[in-house]
Amino acid sequence: MTVTIDRGARSLGEFRFECGETIDDLEVAYEAYGEFDGDNAVLVCHALTGSQNVAGGGFRSRGADGSAGTAGQARAWWNDIVGPGKAVDTAEYYVVCANVPGSCYGTSGPPSAGPDGEPYGTDFPPVTVGDWTRAQRRLLDDLGVGRLHAVVGGSVGGMNVLDWAKRYPDDVRRIAPVATAARLDPQCLALDAIARRAITTDPNWNRGDYYGGEPPRRGLGLARQIGHVMYLSKDSMERKFGRRAAGRDFAGDAFPADPAAAFFPYRDVESYLDYQAEKFVDRFDANSYLYLTHAMDDYDLAEGYESDAAALAAFEGEALVMSFTGDWHFTTEQAESLAAAFREADAPVAHHVIDSDHGHDAFLVEPESVGPPLSDFLADGVGGRAVTDTTEREPEFAPVHNSLFSG
Amino acid sequence: MTVTIDRGARSLGEFRFECGETIDDLEVAYEAYGEFDGDNAVLVCHALTGSQNVAGGGFRSRGADGSAGTAGQARAWWNDIVGPGKAVDTAEYYVVCANVPGSCYGTSGPPSAGPDGEPYGTDFPPVTVGDWTRAQRRLLDDLGVGRLHAVVGGSVGGMNVLDWAKRYPDDVRRIAPVATAARLDPQCLALDAIARRAITTDPNWNRGDYYGGEPPRRGLGLARQIGHVMYLSKDSMERKFGRRAAGRDFAGDAFPADPAAAFFPYRDVESYLDYQAEKFVDRFDANSYLYLTHAMDDYDLAEGYESDAAALAAFEGEALVMSFTGDWHFTTEQAESLAAAFREADAPVAHHVIDSDHGHDAFLVEPESVGPPLSDFLADGVGGRAVTDTTEREPEFAPVHNSLFSG
Repeated sequence: MTVTIDRGARSLGEFRFECGETIDDLEVAYEAYGEFDGDNAVLVCHALTGSQNVAGGGFRSRGADGSAGTAGQARAWWNDIVGPGKAVDTAEYYVVCANVPGSCYGTSGPPSAGPDGEPYGTDFPPVTVGDWTRAQRRLLDDLGVGRLHAVVGGSVGGMNVLDWAKRYPDDVRRIAPVATAARLDPQCLALDAIARRAITTDPNWNRGDYYGGEPPRRGLGLARQIGHVMYLSKDSMERKFGRRAAGRDFAGDAFPADPAAAFFPYRDVESYLDYQAEKFVDRFDANSYLYLTHAMDDYDLAEGYESDAAALAAFEGEALVMSFTGDWHFTTEQAESLAAAFREADAPVAHHVIDSDHGHDAFLVEPESVGPPLSDFLADGVGGRAVTDTTEREPEFAPVHNSLFSG
Repeated sequence: MTVTIDRGARSLGEFRFECGETIDDLEVAYEAYGEFDGDNAVLVCHALTGSQNVAGGGFRSRGADGSAGTAGQARAWWNDIVGPGKAVDTAEYYVVCANVPGSCYGTSGPPSAGPDGEPYGTDFPPVTVGDWTRAQRRLLDDLGVGRLHAVVGGSVGGMNVLDWAKRYPDDVRRIAPVATAARLDPQCLALDAIARRAITTDPNWNRGDYYGGEPPRRGLGLARQIGHVMYLSKDSMERKFGRRAAGRDFAGDAFPADPAAAFFPYRDVESYLDYQAEKFVDRFDANSYLYLTHAMDDYDLAEGYESDAAALAAFEGEALVMSFTGDWHFTTEQAESLAAAFREADAPVAHHVIDSDHGHDAFLVEPESVGPPLSDFLADGVGGRAVTDTTEREPEFAPVHNSLFSG
């Protein structure tokens, strides 16, 4: 089955950010899969370090502005979910994914050239999740898409999804916020704040002015390592790594080793983290990491309203909230609270909980669990065959246990 | 009530570390409270960044070797538990606490003067929890203490306690490992490894040779901030900080701020972390932090044996394992597994679970929960009045739930 793929970037002209600052020309890089029939558009929102390249292999870009090429979790990041015949079927839907402002995959952000031809760096205006939504709205206008059949996305991309229902409630029929929450909890705020300090503490960061020189690879690598711990669970780390020694010594490329380390095993889990850090710093921009984590930390669905439910009051579509039991970045409890807000707002909602010990990564690595309910929801709404809801299994509810010993 | 306090340091002569390296003279700083009657000695083992100053205020030291003075969690760190009339009653017991080798409160470690009069730095031999136990044994010999009534300690100090039961099973009557485990899980190994990389990545670390110059304050501060997240729980962070903004701007002293940060609130949780980092780097040595986290990560009760139970087989005393439901650094599940090992080894054991949302910090900040069972255990063993055991409440056991939605 062949599906048309439109990969490009649009210059959307002057853009005023929520912070009040403007740039003369917001460029937005996007990919669009399939044919638009006037009523079948699905917007997919990417996660923190994702890109517009939601599906399809082999695509690589390196912008004229020096932005990094996609790789790792940025390349074809939901290829098992989005494509011809897949859960988000590009033979049926016109699927659009856009790189968010502040990122580094072709959409305007800190590494992009500013008016003077030099990279903006930290002169780029602070961005918010609301700016992402507004930029997507402008892009869709430019593409000729009015009302969306659905908006779908995971992690901070799920916050982006929620912002659509709040900001443009008439523009979207169905939303699927996956592995997300109405706002981050303070534990995650803390880890994001530490990750940013790791970047700004790297002397190569140089207050954000490192383009053309040596980027803050170690600081960004540390930030990414903290992120990886947030994406996994105790159970998944036990299974993947245990306490096993890696079959080699400390690599010592990404980070200097302390001499005492030579006496102790270099463990699998360290080897994994060091490998992930090295890969990541080749594909992502440190300033973009600062900007996008600020946007995530700042997002609060209830902002400007009395409550989450009030923020969703104007939304008349349906919602599929999906969460994963082993996810401590965005917990099932937060997802249940979000589903309760939709119920309070009289929006048809299902909270579909997937039993998984993969941690936050589950939404990326368990397509067999994510695909069926998502596919049926896009087709039939919350009544879809594979969609289950927590309210259907009332007996399992109980006060939250910290562990089997509590209470 | 007055209690004699003996604060000092002993030169214990040549010491061979488990790594095989020796130093000519191991100095051990200690405090001893109360009177030794031949049968009432209680050894208290301190946690990662603790000191010998387990109780009693007002004590400050700054060694001639340039080691930092105690402060924060190092000063009188269990003052609510240890003292005249308290749970570990210094009017009744002769309580000894010694700073561990590798630390920076007067016992030989990286900041101490080596044979050439210069600080060892990273030439100091790698240390293990076993080295701590062996140094404590030597110190107690020097103090004239043979068999101990009890060994008590929390966190990695609890691993130190376990090592006593394994290494010197005939030398101790009762042990109380608190908020600890037979070994760290890979999630904690990962966070410790990232913390070490934050230190070694700080250019001021200079491969450990920073004495007399500027120490790696930012790297050590980041390491400490990661630690603080491990010591708290989601619930305690929600209660302490929520998403509230601090009443001031980013301080910018400890870490450089990124310009975009000015648009977003500087949150209470960040302010707390920055404050804790600044306090910590004044009192702790960065190389010691590397050494002691290596020791903690490396500890494995079963090492050299077939199982945890086999490692404990020779221990004929009693054990009180204490854990806290909100602790994700050392979980109640790990504590239950440890208690099971004692049961398998036919050692009388009680696993006393304290319902708390304080996280790992609970063992320090909930003396009202920790004190009574500990006091009764010291007096009467596992049959002590306030001691409860998980086996007494069998009906509550169930498969571990990741959350209320799993299973």
